[in-house]
Amino acid sequence: MNKIKNDRFLRACLRQEVDRTPIWIMRQAGRYLPDYRKVRAKTDFLTLCKTPELATEVTLQPIDIIGVDAAIIFSDILVIPEAMGMKLEIEEGRGPVFENRIKSINDFNKLNRNNPTSKLKYVMDALRLTKNELKNRVPLIGFSGSPFTLLTYMVEGKGTKTFSKIKGLIYSKPEEAHKMLSVLSDVIAEYLSEKIEAGADALQLFDTWGGILSKKEYLEFSLPYMEKIISQIKREKEPVIVFSKGAFHSISEMAKSGADVLGLDWTMDIGEIRKKVGKKVALQGNLDPTVLYAPGDVIRQKASEVLESFGEGNGHIFNLGHGILPDINPENAKLLVKFVKTQSKKYHK
Amino acid sequence: MNKIKNDRFLRACLRQEVDRTPIWIMRQAGRYLPDYRKVRAKTDFLTLCKTPELATEVTLQPIDIIGVDAAIIFSDILVIPEAMGMKLEIEEGRGPVFENRIKSINDFNKLNRNNPTSKLKYVMDALRLTKNELKNRVPLIGFSGSPFTLLTYMVEGKGTKTFSKIKGLIYSKPEEAHKMLSVLSDVIAEYLSEKIEAGADALQLFDTWGGILSKKEYLEFSLPYMEKIISQIKREKEPVIVFSKGAFHSISEMAKSGADVLGLDWTMDIGEIRKKVGKKVALQGNLDPTVLYAPGDVIRQKASEVLESFGEGNGHIFNLGHGILPDINPENAKLLVKFVKTQSKKYHK
Repeated sequence: MNKIKNDRFLRACLRQEVDRTPIWIMRQAGRYLPDYRKVRAKTDFLTLCKTPELATEVTLQPIDIIGVDAAIIFSDILVIPEAMGMKLEIEEGRGPVFENRIKSINDFNKLNRNNPTSKLKYVMDALRLTKNELKNRVPLIGFSGSPFTLLTYMVEGKGTKTFSKIKGLIYSKPEEAHKMLSVLSDVIAEYLSEKIEAGADALQLFDTWGGILSKKEYLEFSLPYMEKIISQIKREKEPVIVFSKGAFHSISEMAKSGADVLGLDWTMDIGEIRKKVGKKVALQGNLDPTVLYAPGDVIRQKASEVLESFGEGNGHIFNLGHGILPDINPENAKLLVKFVKTQSKKYHK
Repeated sequence: MNKIKNDRFLRACLRQEVDRTPIWIMRQAGRYLPDYRKVRAKTDFLTLCKTPELATEVTLQPIDIIGVDAAIIFSDILVIPEAMGMKLEIEEGRGPVFENRIKSINDFNKLNRNNPTSKLKYVMDALRLTKNELKNRVPLIGFSGSPFTLLTYMVEGKGTKTFSKIKGLIYSKPEEAHKMLSVLSDVIAEYLSEKIEAGADALQLFDTWGGILSKKEYLEFSLPYMEKIISQIKREKEPVIVFSKGAFHSISEMAKSGADVLGLDWTMDIGEIRKKVGKKVALQGNLDPTVLYAPGDVIRQKASEVLESFGEGNGHIFNLGHGILPDINPENAKLLVKFVKTQSKKYHK
């Protein structure tokens, strides 16, 4: 970790001094890049995840092309349920589908709960290979879905607008939900510990669906399991980022979760949240991803507003407030990165 | 208005004293009711909207069957763009589709902007007929989509996850967006004034998509146009409810918009928001609609939590935090209404 040449991302996560605000982009290795589409043209999404050489290739693309300050290993949050035995189909643009969704705790108990990470060696291989190829230019981020987010996919089985099945579960059989979330937490903690072992310099928990819950349910079914994971991960000083999209109501509780960094979606005011959480955590975010559809001067203006809202001082990692969209022009992502790198210097004097 | 027998809903909107908390349910006239499905089996959705006798019939159903304290006229927010000349297809379950979406301000300018409400007489006829059949049992609510929400549908043309077209518009051509929003505001204000004239006792603005904007954009592209409408509606003391789903960040600004009532989605803590807005406005909401999938004791428990969170005193209209879902058992809606009617008395001593 000490030998990383551009360690601004890690320093910012730990609220240490940096000369400018670091930036990376959620889904930076993805369909908006022609280079990524070239790789994908030769293989399907899951095979790409499972082939360390290819995963490494696409992980490195945005470092060279876009110029971001961190790499994030190319993978998918649903490799865990797949390793537990759920047959997964991922069709980009349509969303993932599990052939047999989890209908009860009995279905869940039939899954492979004994050491499922042994089936995820390909992820660790990809991390080791990427770490090697990165040659310490920038840090490498590993990630997982949160327990509530994984359970949502496993119970719904496919995309949903109403989340009727997962909500039905937590309202009707909360004790069963808790049992499943607890098991998933242990699996995820083990998975993330192995990622650290394989070379990850930082970790992010994607809590994509925590925000569909009301505050009381979020604090019962989502956040405590992320806390459990954070306390269980075997790490030295590798920071953990928690990104609970939409969970604006529980920022103060998240700040006490043990996370080093909170990811913010674009609806939150990063300046207001900085005032609220004080010096407890660093903040990551939070430009509206659709700003990248706009002309250059608008992108610069809106990025300035985020920098200005956070204000002077350390503890800000610039990012979008959600993943980059597949039809964004990569030139606009480059422009954003270049602008943040230059323009943020004045907040770090 | 004075002659309405059960006027608790109106009194609560105006923060006047009531003996218990009134309740109605967004989408209370809808697919979860077998009686509604019987009517729909004979006709398509738009014809139902356009036939005053049928619209009246389904509007009255939940008053008799579920026992709610207010009726809301059966209609759709997209009848305005349709009256302006956009060909609309509504297939319940799949979402509305405009054959030719608005691609530019030129497309918009070609629409019928001269007195489009003259094509919406069927809505006013339905209101008059319903008002007559209600025999002053409970108040009647009229509604419209907000300007930003209507423009979103008109520009996207169909369902979207990314809102790339409307966001592209406001970020790239904000002055054109403002022109269109301004025209829509005038049309909506006229439409709602006519609804009051036709017998509506209260009005609700559904700002379904305001919450996809960041705070700065919400305060530029959504809220000001609702303020404009509220100031333009010709009314005496008929209250106006503003429901901006997801716009948690701008509650204080909404409370100063001229609205009498703010609708809250289920992610917001109604007690915290009551503290924030003080006595400026009444609050409507905000039970998670998926709670109605749960067993009776859970429904009662979660409804109690909402009542307790708001606490003692006036100015609360109970509702779900979003429309009732089509696969809910009507018995659960009945149970909720009965429970709120009884249990809320202790907060009004």
